Order: sequence, then structure tokens, then C-alpha cells
Amino acid sequence: MKVAMSLAEVRDLRHQLPDPFGLVPTMGFLHEGHLSLVRRAKSECGSVGVSIFVNPTQFGPEEDLEDYPRDVERDMLMLEDEKIDLLWTPMAEELYPPGYQTWVTVESLSQPLEGAHRLGHFRGVATIVTKLLTAVRPDRVYVGQKDAQQARVIRRLVQDLNLPVEVVNCAIVREPDGLAMSSRNAYLNPEERRAATVLHRALTAAAEAYAQGERGADALRLKMYEMLLGESMAKTQYVSVADPETLEEQWGPVERALLSLAVFVGKTRLIDNIVVGAG
Amino acid sequence: MKVAMSLAEVRDLRHQLPDPFGLVPTMGFLHEGHLSLVRRAKSECGSVGVSIFVNPTQFGPEEDLEDYPRDVERDMLMLEDEKIDLLWTPMAEELYPPGYQTWVTVESLSQPLEGAHRLGHFRGVATIVTKLLTAVRPDRVYVGQKDAQQARVIRRLVQDLNLPVEVVNCAIVREPDGLAMSSRNAYLNPEERRAATVLHRALTAAAEAYAQGERGADALRLKMYEMLLGESMAKTQYVSVADPETLEEQWGPVERALLSLAVFVGKTRLIDNIVVGAG
Repeated sequence: MKVAMSLAEVRDLRHQLPDPFGLVPTMGFLHEGHLSLVRRAKSECGSVGVSIFVNPTQFGPEEDLEDYPRDVERDMLMLEDEKIDLLWTPMAEELYPPGYQTWVTVESLSQPLEGAHRLGHFRGVATIVTKLLTAVRPDRVYVGQKDAQQARVIRRLVQDLNLPVEVVNCAIVREPDGLAMSSRNAYLNPEERRAATVLHRALTAAAEAYAQGERGADALRLKMYEMLLGESMAKTQYVSVADPETLEEQWGPVERALLSLAVFVGKTRLIDNIVVGAG
Repeated sequence: MKVAMSLAEVRDLRHQLPDPFGLVPTMGFLHEGHLSLVRRAKSECGSVGVSIFVNPTQFGPEEDLEDYPRDVERDMLMLEDEKIDLLWTPMAEELYPPGYQTWVTVESLSQPLEGAHRLGHFRGVATIVTKLLTAVRPDRVYVGQKDAQQARVIRRLVQDLNLPVEVVNCAIVREPDGLAMSSRNAYLNPEERRAATVLHRALTAAAEAYAQGERGADALRLKMYEMLLGESMAKTQYVSVADPETLEEQWGPVERALLSLAVFVGKTRLIDNIVVGAG
């Protein structure tokens, strides 16, 4: 595993790697979710790179940029075990030089859901992803379905900017009790950790209602709310039944839908989602 | 000279050309100003490409997108004569697919001067330039100083997005009587054509005052206004003395400055500029 920090290094190293080259962009503090992306990339690509960069521009001023968990040494050992070819830990001062003022925005897909509660978040995501993709020009980029809206924004961005890269969505990896893997799960104390399963329980309740024939978007949202209200430690920020392509909130009957939610458990903000009617 | 329309073609053809590859992005209806960029590129690069695309997203709803002069056949003959390697005439439907919603913005540099009078103009410019540069990955891109703010925006964009391309600014090419070459000069009737020299006369008057020791930004603007007021067919939109790097309007004494102006002559909007204190 080669390690690059500067853009010059990473471009040079990537040049020497066999195509197709797969990139797994991450913010580090890796877990099995990230590793599932890495393994999928390994199985499909001639060479694989992982980037680790806690991108400051996708955090709001009230968010957890400072506290975001970091452990690059542990990450490096994990990636070494996975036998990836290239680790890139970009330098913020190179990606955001003094006087920085250029932004990539994906307009309507960035408005609802996470975008409505995290102002500027997807502008930061779209900008950093554009920079990562143009720097190393992967043939495939692997993104997790855990951040469903982010995956959708990246897919649109790649299409709109005509970037020659295939976006590969990877399924959510869950703990045995259903909690979606997330670096932010590290914030949870044991009691909160138990309560945090309510996100998956709420999604499952709605998905079961869907499986039993329920198609009303309102009824599906209600199913999720009911479950969330049963967990006193959970404070719901939003619950959504949206079109999986446009992310527009749905009000009538749905065939295919992205069910998603954002919930505070203690001070930790968690998100999760499931698509019903897929395939 | 090879001609490409689709992205797949242009990527493929560019791949076969020797480095360094120089790109001259244009909106066509070529004149000696464009050709000076082409010749400079030819003299410095292993291969040269020219793009011709009247980019709809940089025109405002009240602007001249429909009327913008076009003559691709004549352009092709001129470029054939210059012995360029690659002509790219992108297809709008490929660059802006249905549902298009991704924009590149360069914030503060896009606000003053042209940006203040052409809302959304530099968003369109920054977006198309990002697309052209990421599609063909030139080693150098040649831009004309006639569009001084555009050149500054492109330079900042390339720096901020870490695009591995050198931005080469090329001097304004003028008609014998001083009028800056522009595709829009074709709009002028003979009387307007004569009046249009007032832009250069105004800039020259201010530059001469600067050469004689005048450093006051207000005094330099006044020099330009005086000359413009002497031409009854000219209607001034703005006159500016700005910092050449930040494009901020200057109010105190200046050492180095971008003098620029936008003037209607009849219905035709013309711009011109000169940098004083350079070098």
C-alpha cells in the first residue's frame, strides 16, 4: 500500500496503477461499512485507492467537525489488511488554498432531507467529490447507500459534469441488532447505543407495512413516527417517504420509495434509510 | 485536423495527441483575437485543440444567445489553415442532459464588473470551462485578456479545483484604430463601428494620465467618463478601476490596476480593458 498526501504524489502513484482503478472516498474512522466498499472495489477493479479526508466544508458551523472521530493509524492498519493499492490522505491547505472561493452545487437534489437540516452540507460534498474525482480520475467510485442522498447527489454530479466514472452504490452494513454502521456510532454511550436501534426498527415497521400492501406515503411516515415515539431517548428530526430518484417528498400512493429519517439519540445525530419497491 | 462532437470521440482523439496539449475554448465566429491564441498555443504545445460552443448557460434571458453570430464552416476553414490538431464542437444535449442541475461558481470574483450586469454569466462560464477542462484535460488552456474577468475567474477556478492545467493569458488583439477584436463587432453598422473606438480612446486617456503620474482611482475613472461623454452614440454601463487580482473596485491611490468598461454602442454591448502598472 502506497500512501500519498500531496496531489502531485497521488496523481503520480495513480498513474502507475492498473486500470480499472476504483476509489473509495471516506472520512476515515473506518468500520465494516467502509470495508464492504473496499472489498467490493477490490473484487471489481484492477487497483483500489481509499481517500481519508474529514472535509471541513461539508460541516455546518454548529456541527461536529472538531469532534468527528479520527484514528488514521488504525485506519491504515485496516487498509493494509485489505491490501489496497493506494491510500490518499489529502492536505486541507492544498485542497482549499488561501482565498478559496469555488463551489460545486447540485441544486434540487441538495434541497430536501439532509440538505434542509444541514445547510451547505451538499455544496461541501459536491465540491470535495469533484476535486477527488478529477484529481485521481478513478474508473469507478464506491459510495455507501447509508448516505442515500449523498449517493444520489454524487451520481447526478458525475452525470452533469460528464466525469468518466461509474458510481457504484453499496448496500448499508448493519450491526447484528440492525443499527446502521456509522463512524458517529462511537459517540453513543451504552444506553444510547441500545436506543439507537429504533431507527432501523422504525424503517422495518414501515417496510413491513409496505410489504403487506400499504402504499400511502402518509401511512408509511406514520408507521415510522409511531415506532420512534416509543423510544423516549430518541428525538426525531425528520421522517420521509420520497421518490428515490428526485428525492421529492411523496404525498399520494407510492410504488418505489426511499424511506429515510434523521434522529437525535442524546446529542448524536443518526440517519438511516431503506428503499421499498426496489427492483 | 480531426473533428469531434461527442465526449467519447474527443476523449479518444485527445488521447492520441502528443503532450503538452493546448486547448483554446471559443464560442466560434473566429477573428484574429482567437487566432492569436491558437498561434500562441501552436508555438508552445505538442498539439492544439479548439472548442467551439456557444454556451447557453452563460447568456442571461435578455441577452443575445439567439443572435450570437455563428459560422462554423468559415471557422473550420480558418482552423484548418492554422493546422490545429483537433476541433471540438460539443453537443449541448450531451453537456447539459435532461434534469441538469450542477453548477460551478467562483464566488467573489464573479460579483463585480461583468458579473454585476450579467447575472449568472460567470456561473455559466465556470461550469462550461470546468466541463471542457475535465473532458479533454489539456496541459494548457489559452484565454484572452479581452475578457479580463473571465480570465481571472478561470485562473481561480483551476487553482481551487486543483485542475492540472496552466492558464495562459493572451493580450488583446485590436483593429488598426484600436477597437478590441470581438465577435460582437459584427453587430455594428458603419456609424456605430466608428463610434466604438471610444472604448479604446477612453482607456488610452486614462492610461496616459497614469503614465503622467496620476494615481487616483477616481481621477482615472473620470478620465474615461470624459472621453465616453464626448461620443454621443455611446451609452456607458460601467467604468472601473479595480485591483487586477481581487477585482475589487479601488477608491484610493492605485499602483497596479485593471481599467475596464462596458459601453452600449447602439444595441451592441462592448467591453474593453487595459492593465496599468503591470510588470
